[in-house]
This record gives sequence, structure tokens and C-alpha cells, in this order.
Amino acid sequence: MELDHTDRSILDLLIQDGRMSYTDIGKELGLSRVAVRSRVNQLIADGVIEKFSCIVNSEKVGKNVSAFFEVDCEPANLVEVAESLVNNPVVASCYQMTGPSTLHMHVLVKDFAQLESFINEELYGLKGITRVESHILLRRFKSRSGLKL
Amino acid sequence: MELDHTDRSILDLLIQDGRMSYTDIGKELGLSRVAVRSRVNQLIADGVIEKFSCIVNSEKVGKNVSAFFEVDCEPANLVEVAESLVNNPVVASCYQMTGPSTLHMHVLVKDFAQLESFINEELYGLKGITRVESHILLRRFKSRSGLKL
Amino acid sequence: MELDHTDRSILDLLIQDGRMSYTDIGKELGLSRVAVRSRVNQLIADGVIEKFSCIVNSEKVGKNVSAFFEVDCEPANLVEVAESLVNNPVVASCYQMTGPSTLHMHVLVKDFAQLESFINEELYGLKGITRVESHILLRRFKSRSGLKL
Amino acid sequence: MELDHTDRSILDLLIQDGRMSYTDIGKELGLSRVAVRSRVNQLIADGVIEKFSCIVNSEKVGKNVSAFFEVDCEPANLVEVAESLVNNPVVASCYQMTGPSTLHMHVLVKDFAQLESFINEELYGLKGITRVESHILLRRFKSRSGLKL
Amino acid sequence: MELDHTDRSILDLLIQDGRMSYTDIGKELGLSRVAVRSRVNQLIADGVIEKFSCIVNSEKVGKNVSAFFEVDCEPANLVEVAESLVNNPVVASCYQMTGPSTLHMHVLVKDFAQLESFINEELYGLKGITRVESHILLRRFKSRSGLKL
Amino acid sequence: MELDHTDRSILDLLIQDGRMSYTDIGKELGLSRVAVRSRVNQLIADGVIEKFSCIVNSEKVGKNVSAFFEVDCEPANLVEVAESLVNNPVVASCYQMTGPSTLHMHVLVKDFAQLESFINEELYGLKGITRVESHILLRRFKSRSGLKL
Amino acid sequence: MELDHTDRSILDLLIQDGRMSYTDIGKELGLSRVAVRSRVNQLIADGVIEKFSCIVNSEKVGKNVSAFFEVDCEPANLVEVAESLVNNPVVASCYQMTGPSTLHMHVLVKDFAQLESFINEELYGLKGITRVESHILLRRFKSRSGLKL
Amino acid sequence: MELDHTDRSILDLLIQDGRMSYTDIGKELGLSRVAVRSRVNQLIADGVIEKFSCIVNSEKVGKNVSAFFEVDCEPANLVEVAESLVNNPVVASCYQMTGPSTLHMHVLVKDFAQLESFINEELYGLKGITRVESHILLRRFKSRSGLKL
Repeated sequence: MELDHTDRSILDLLIQDGRMSYTDIGKELGLSRVAVRSRVNQLIADGVIEKFSCIVNSEKVGKNVSAFFEVDCEPANLVEVAESLVNNPVVASCYQMTGPSTLHMHVLVKDFAQLESFINEELYGLKGITRVESHILLRRFKSRSGLKL
Repeated sequence: MELDHTDRSILDLLIQDGRMSYTDIGKELGLSRVAVRSRVNQLIADGVIEKFSCIVNSEKVGKNVSAFFEVDCEPANLVEVAESLVNNPVVASCYQMTGPSTLHMHVLVKDFAQLESFINEELYGLKGITRVESHILLRRFKSRSGLKL
Repeated sequence: MELDHTDRSILDLLIQDGRMSYTDIGKELGLSRVAVRSRVNQLIADGVIEKFSCIVNSEKVGKNVSAFFEVDCEPANLVEVAESLVNNPVVASCYQMTGPSTLHMHVLVKDFAQLESFINEELYGLKGITRVESHILLRRFKSRSGLKL
Repeated sequence: MELDHTDRSILDLLIQDGRMSYTDIGKELGLSRVAVRSRVNQLIADGVIEKFSCIVNSEKVGKNVSAFFEVDCEPANLVEVAESLVNNPVVASCYQMTGPSTLHMHVLVKDFAQLESFINEELYGLKGITRVESHILLRRFKSRSGLKL
Repeated sequence: MELDHTDRSILDLLIQDGRMSYTDIGKELGLSRVAVRSRVNQLIADGVIEKFSCIVNSEKVGKNVSAFFEVDCEPANLVEVAESLVNNPVVASCYQMTGPSTLHMHVLVKDFAQLESFINEELYGLKGITRVESHILLRRFKSRSGLKL
Repeated sequence: MELDHTDRSILDLLIQDGRMSYTDIGKELGLSRVAVRSRVNQLIADGVIEKFSCIVNSEKVGKNVSAFFEVDCEPANLVEVAESLVNNPVVASCYQMTGPSTLHMHVLVKDFAQLESFINEELYGLKGITRVESHILLRRFKSRSGLKL
Repeated sequence: MELDHTDRSILDLLIQDGRMSYTDIGKELGLSRVAVRSRVNQLIADGVIEKFSCIVNSEKVGKNVSAFFEVDCEPANLVEVAESLVNNPVVASCYQMTGPSTLHMHVLVKDFAQLESFINEELYGLKGITRVESHILLRRFKSRSGLKL
Repeated sequence: MELDHTDRSILDLLIQDGRMSYTDIGKELGLSRVAVRSRVNQLIADGVIEKFSCIVNSEKVGKNVSAFFEVDCEPANLVEVAESLVNNPVVASCYQMTGPSTLHMHVLVKDFAQLESFINEELYGLKGITRVESHILLRRFKSRSGLKL
């Protein structure tokens, strides 16, 4: 599957403003509204566009503490642990990386009390977890939305 | 600033579908289109909604390698290094965390050749960098869009 | 709960000298003895003042070795291990921190023989402990009393 | 210098309540008020009692974040770095330990914004600092006051 | 067993070109074809020459990802784990080193999907494995063939 | 470039025995000598076969100590350090990996005296090297020749 | 127990030459042979002199490889593991230190084959050992005999 | 150089008791005093016996603290640092090992005050030292004298 220059321009505009109308996109790129809609639908069908969303400021909705976790598991339990964690609403993302046999996980919580209870009551009780390392976000220098990590 | 239940319901719908029309949101929640628009505008004005965007599949646009970096800096250079890195288009995000005095950075590149050239020609040349650790994404278990990390 | 300037001045004086009489505090701050007593009682009732104490030089009472421990536990056992440790009279403090899933513990003992016997006979026998790291205090640059860590 | 049983009983009472009157201590231990005062004065003169103080709840006076730091220095700069840090009012304690050539430091701050500014504007600017590791207190299991660590 | 200068010259030529004819080697070194053959046969009989081989470019045969693993095992299981791993066709080499009680292993796979499935489905299921660290080859500066590591 | 089944069979035979005659390969695979030669020449021209070689037992030629090094460099010096190292005849291979910003290097030497002199007189003198970690090979479980790592 | 200057001089001479005659020591220090013997006997009776010995060059008696081990144990098994190890004739010394919960052990063996067999057949089979790290001596800068570490 | 069984028996006796008379050794082994002397002299001439010494209990001579150091140096300074350290009387031994580019050093001091002053005033001032790790001996399980490590 090959994206042409027009497809990429449409994506750039929609990443900047996910609610931009097809008419406005068309004006910007010299296309008809119908041509834009047709290309967007194709991008969705091809899985290039996964969804439209709105980016919400986590502190403004009461998620004041953003924490990153390295979760070491018994290798035999890693996938099972990951599958438990992704069902927890405080877990924003969960990845397996090269490097050590840990899960890399982002967690958003209201405050330290919720963080401590997540750690001691939910995370530490999972079978196969051997060690957990957590760090708290101090400062965001860049946080690009629109492209899935 | 206090969000009420209706605000949260609007946010949930827009996170699920960032292009949902205000009319459809209103139907779902028993509100007029005008009331929805007014609340959304207020959420934007208050900084709760940072932007609307579309979530693009990185592999489908040719970003096949997703890498996480821990960048150790001389403490005195950390902010300056961060400010150089955020201008680099392959850098998706860059955070300062508690824990070691490193920057945590996500990078999306086309392939290993581009990764190696980013590391050797761009990253390693920055003044004040003392050690770099990189890991490659093997598997995504969860990757929530819509809430800024 | 909001502390005013007078409350903070009273706290500063009592941190400096926990036995200062209310009359003397009153003279210093231009208050009556009764007003001071009433504010101190309120600070105690609000939990601002946890207790009055005296700070004892540990070497002078025969606690010659001050050791810091990082105690790694099976995550599922961390709370239980902590609860055993806090009952041990040589344990001065015990905290759970972000970072690795360890307990951070301060221990005061008479000498190395007591340290070794604490480690081998008490600490290492606790169920769920996987690794212990100990360090001995060499030099105090600052050790503030009066504010709970 | 040898403490007898009566000295130790007086210390125990004063650690429990630093403002206990000498009369009440005397009643408890079968001593006259004068005998108690004379022993306490001797304990102060001998440096056994370093000071009387009051233990203040740090969250209640607006110190919501309690952080522990490991500060790695160029060995040649360690003492000088320590001497700068102890003058900073957010630094509660600062120790040199066996183990790695780091300073172990406790910091009490109002919030994450103050923590980030302490790290980036004060700590990271000190000459000779090569690496900093910070962790946030999640839970206190024991925090003994009255005996200097 | 002592190699003379002529033996070493023959080895050098065969490392450079494993198919060089004995006649050509003889011309180069002033020996008869028969003398060369006799010496080569002796080198094989003595185990100096382990085999003749051809060096294949791994990417050109579809092995695009070259990964190095550090495999931590329960010490009691290390040999057994090693013996399982060497039977896996993606494992190119497997060594026990001084340093930590890990196996050092080189793996060649087609792509990241095969790497992830090797890790999660084959490696992590082996009994006695406690932790795995993997790194991906970014750049070859030198890769000498002909001398067994 | 696509290898067919016959190409792969030829490669397998030549990896097993790099001096196998084209006639014998042809007999094995039902091809003429000329067809085999033509395919081998094409595999060489395409870079699939990098060279023919002979695999020499390192201990038998007096290389008794096989060491692996992790060489940490100032990031800005990594490529230059690598280029110095590859010219050293004791260096068998040298790679840049993901993970820490180190070079991974294999070294073959006669004995410990030569290892120590390589470390102290050659390696440690290179500009930009900050830390070196070395490990000695204890046991080979598998060491595949024929496929470049 | 207090050593005077003459005791220390006798110790210095005996550390330099453990077979020095009491007559010669007496001449050196202006004492009678009887006085020297009496003081030496007292030093032995007091445990100051643990034994007389001769310092043997380990390579010259065929112990060519000197290795240091860090042996991590389950804390509950540490003493038992140590007691097994000290009975092994290749173990020269074995200590428990502050720092990580490991045993620090010195081993002298004939060659790498004996080292590998000690590791895989003796050490790794001990119950409660979780991780072993080994390093080989490259160069002695100082090795003081006569004073027990 | 080959030691026979009689040589080894003589060494064993002298390691056990470095002052054993040649007459007594001869009786034990069925040799004349002259034959023993002649063999011992040959062992000394060959460097097998490095010296006779007496093993002194370090605590009994006021060396109460036995510390092990890992001293990280700039690789280019390692030999020079080692040569400074071996001249310091508190340094009992100093080795270069495989593993990290550190010096391994044993130090015997009177007390913690002397340890702290050695670290801060002597060790940390040496040019090229980047990090120091120290651990204190808690318990000796075995400490063999007579064979040089």
C-alpha cells in the first residue's frame, strides 16, 4: 500500500484539526469535497486512519499524576500479566520492548493516594510480577498526538 | 474548574469519535445542538480539550520502527538537550521523569538505517549527552489515544 | 485548613525549642500566653503538631552504627514485610517510594555485631524478601528535626 | 560516658512528650523535680539531648511532596556540593553513605512544580553533579522521631 | 602441537579464500601441490581447521534482524536451558561467559514479528529462565570470519 | 532479489563444506556442473555469498582467551572509537547495538598477559572511552559458522 | 588490650620475615631473646598473632586463574550457602559485606576448564543461589600479606 | 618448573606453621634437615615461596573496619590511580579484574572517622576517579592465608 502526496497532505491537516470539514480540506488542497471524502474513507478502510479523537488535557480532568512503570515479570507470565493490566482503566498504554523482559506501562491517576492503592492493591497482587519500577512525570517537553506510538 | 457529568459524557463521545456531529452528541445526551456546541467551546476555552486529531497507524505511513530512548545528560545540559530534541521530526515525545536524570523519548522512524543515522548523526552529536539507551517496540498491548500522557 | 503568619511563627519557635514557655512565645510575637496556648492547642487538634519530642544524639546513647537498607520484596509480600519490620526496635523508619519495588529503611544499632545479627537472623528470615542492600552512614551534612519526612 | 537506667527512663519520657514537666517526670520515676532538672541539664551538657523540638506534619504545612534523591558527584566535588545543598531550605537532610559515591538527600516541597524547579534550576546547576536519581514517597510505614538518624 | 610458518601461511590463504586450489597455494608459497594437500590434511586431522564454509550475507537470505540476548537463568538450570536453545534454528550462537550467570546468545530472524514470537512463544516458556535482555544490531563495524570466537 | 529452493540447497551444501566441488553439488541436486557454477557465480555477484573461508579452531592456533567487551564511549566519539578498534588485529568483531551506547566487541588473544596489555595499553588509551566491561568465554554451547551475525 | 611500641616493632619484623629468630629480633630492638619470646608468646595468647605462615605464589603452584565471585543468594539461604562454599578447597576466602545481599568469594583454580566445572557442577547446584557474577584477576597492583582482611 | 609430592608436603607444613623447624619437617616427611633446607631454599629461589610472614588479627591491632572498594577511573588514568593507591598504608590490596573498568581494593582502617577521611581527603582527590563504591565487611566465613590471591 502506497500513500501519495495528496493522502499525506490530508493526514497532516486532519492530525492538526481532526474536525476540519472535507470542504475546507478540499479548498486547501485543490480537491472537491467528494474527492476528499473518498480518500478519507479509503484511508480509514486501509487502516491508515485508526480513529478520530480529541486530545484531552489530563490534569484538567483530574488526572494529576502521570506515572511510567517498568514491570518485570517471570518471562512465562508476561503476556498474561499484560492482558490483566490493559483492562485496568488507569493504564493508558502498555508495551513490550527489546531490552529487559519488562512491560513498559503508562498510568494516569488522580493523586498519590490512588497511585499507591493501584500499586499495592492491584499491580503487586498479579501473579508472576517480580519487580516494579515507577517514575513520575515531571515535565513534558513534547507530546505528539495523532501518530500512534 | 469543575467538570459536571454532562461535560464528561461529551468528552467520552469525542474521544471515541472526534468528528461526531454536535447534533448526534445532543441526541445521545438529551441536549440541543447549540448546548453541545456551547459546552465544547467552553471545554476548548478552558484547555480541557487541547485539540481534535486523527490517530494514524504509524506502520501504515511507513514508520516501521518505534523506539524508546533513555537519554542521560550532564544535569546542567538537560533542558537544552530536550529543547534540541523536540525540534527533530522523528521525536514523537520527550519527557523528564523522576528517577535517573534522563530524558525519556519516543522516536518513530522508517527503518533501522534511519534509526542508526538518527542515533549516530543527530543524537550523539548533542553537547552534554553522556549515555543513551534505546529499545525497540516489540508488541503493543494497549495504546490509549485521547488522553495526553 | 489554612495556617496564618502567626501560626507559622509559633511553629518555628517550637521547632527551635520544643519546651519554650507560652509566655516567652507570646512575648516574642506580641500575643498573650492564653492566645498562644489556644493556637497551639488548635495546631495539635488539627494534626499540624504531631508531638513534642526531644532529639537525642544516637551515638551518645550507644547507637554507633546508622544503616540505610533497600529491601526488595516479592511485590505481593511488600506490605506484610513492612508491617513486620516496623515492629523491630532497631528500625527507625520504613518507607515505600516510587522507583524500584523496595522498602527504604533506616536502622540504628549498637555495633557491627548487632547489625550482622539483625541482617542474618531477623531480616533475611522474613518471607518474601528477595534481595537486601545496606549502606552505612559515613557523614551527616544536614539532619533536620521537627519536620516529618 | 555511661547512661544509667534513670537517665534512659527520662529520655524515653521526653521523647514521648518533649514538654512533660520535670515534676511529672519525677512522679513517674520516684525522683524530685530538682533531681530531674539536674539530670536533664547534664544530658544537655553532655550532648545526649541535642534539642527539644516539635514534630510537624509536613503535608499539613503545605509540604505535599516528600522526595529522596541520590546525587552522584565527581568525587572531588562531593563535599562542596553537600555544603551548597544543606543551605537550601527544601533540603531536610543530606548524608554521605558507604556504597556508591553519592549523597543521599531528603527534600520536602509544596508540589511537583516546585520539585521540578528545584531539580532543573537549583540542583542541576551545581558544579560537579554528574547524575541525579529521585524518588517520591508513596507511603510511610514508620517514621521515628526523637532519635537522630 | 606446534604450527610452523608455512602452516600459518596456508591458513591465512584459506581464510581469505576457502576454495583456493592446492596448486595455487603451492605456487604462492613455493610448495608442491602434494605438500600443500598433506599439510592441509594434517591441519584437519589435528583439529586446527574445523571446516571449510562459505560466509553468507544474512540480510540477503532474508534474516533482516540480528539480535543479541542475555538470558538469565536459575543457576541450576543454565546448562539445560542452553541445551534447549542450541537446537533452535534461529539461534546462531550461545556462550557462557564470566560476569553474570547469563547465557549470551545471537539470534537471526526474518523480522520483528518472528523475533516477538521467538521471545514470547519459545524463549519465555523455557523452565528456569528468570530474565531476558535483548538488543538489536544497528551497525557492523567488523565481523571477522574464519576464526571461531 | 528472490532466492529459489535450488539456490538455498546450494548454500546449505557450501556452508557444510565450502570446498565441495560443483560436480558433487550438481549430483546431489540433479544439476549440471555448469548450472551449479553459474548459480554460485550469481550468488557471489548478488552479495549473497560474501566469501569462502575455513573455520579455524582459535585455541589450536594459540588464541586461548576469547573475551567479550562492552565499550562505553562518549556518544560523540563512538564511531571514531569503533574505527580505531577494527584496525586492531586482536579484535574479531565490533558491533553497535540498541540498548546502552556501547560497542560490543569480541577479542581473541594468546593469554591473560596479552589481554591485560591490550586493555591497559591499547583500549584504555583511546580518546572518548569512559568505561569498559570485559568477560571471558567459559563454554561454547553453539557457534554457527557460515551465516554472518 | 593495648599494644605498646615494642610489640608493634616485633609484629613489623615478623610480618616482613616470619622465620626471623628471636635473637635477631632482640638485636634489632635492644631486647634479650627471652624477652622477645615472652612477648611473642603473649601476642599469640592474646590472638594478635593468628599464625605463622609462608606466602606461596599461586601461579607457581599451578593455580593460574584467580577469580572473584559475587554470589547472590535467597537471603534465607545465605549463611547455609556460605558454609557449603568454605568447605570447597578452591575457595580461598568468603565474606559477607554491606551492600547487596551477596557473598564475596575468592577462588583459585588451575585453569578455565576447572573454573567452568566449579561454576557449573558445584556452585550452580547449591540451593538458594539466584545469580552469580564472576571476574578474573588481570593484574595485581598490591597484595599485602600478614594482615588478615 | 614442576613441584613433586615432597615439595608440596613441605609447602603444606610451612603454610600451617611458617616457623616449623627444618628438623621437624624432616621428621614428618622422612627427610634429613639438610634435604629440607635445600628444598626450601630452592622453592624460595624459584619464587614458589614468596616470603615467610605472620598473620595478624586486624581488629586486635586496632584495624576495626575492613572495607572493600570498587574504584571507577577514566580508563586512561587507571594505572596511575592504582600506583597512587598502593602507596597508601591503609590500602591492603589493589587488583584490576575483568568486568567493569574498576580497581578492586581492600582497605583496613581504625574506625569510621578514618574511613571517611580516607575517602574524602585521599581517595576522592585523585585525578581520574569518576565513581567509588565502598562496602564494609560484616562477617568472615573463610579467609585463607598462605596462598597469594
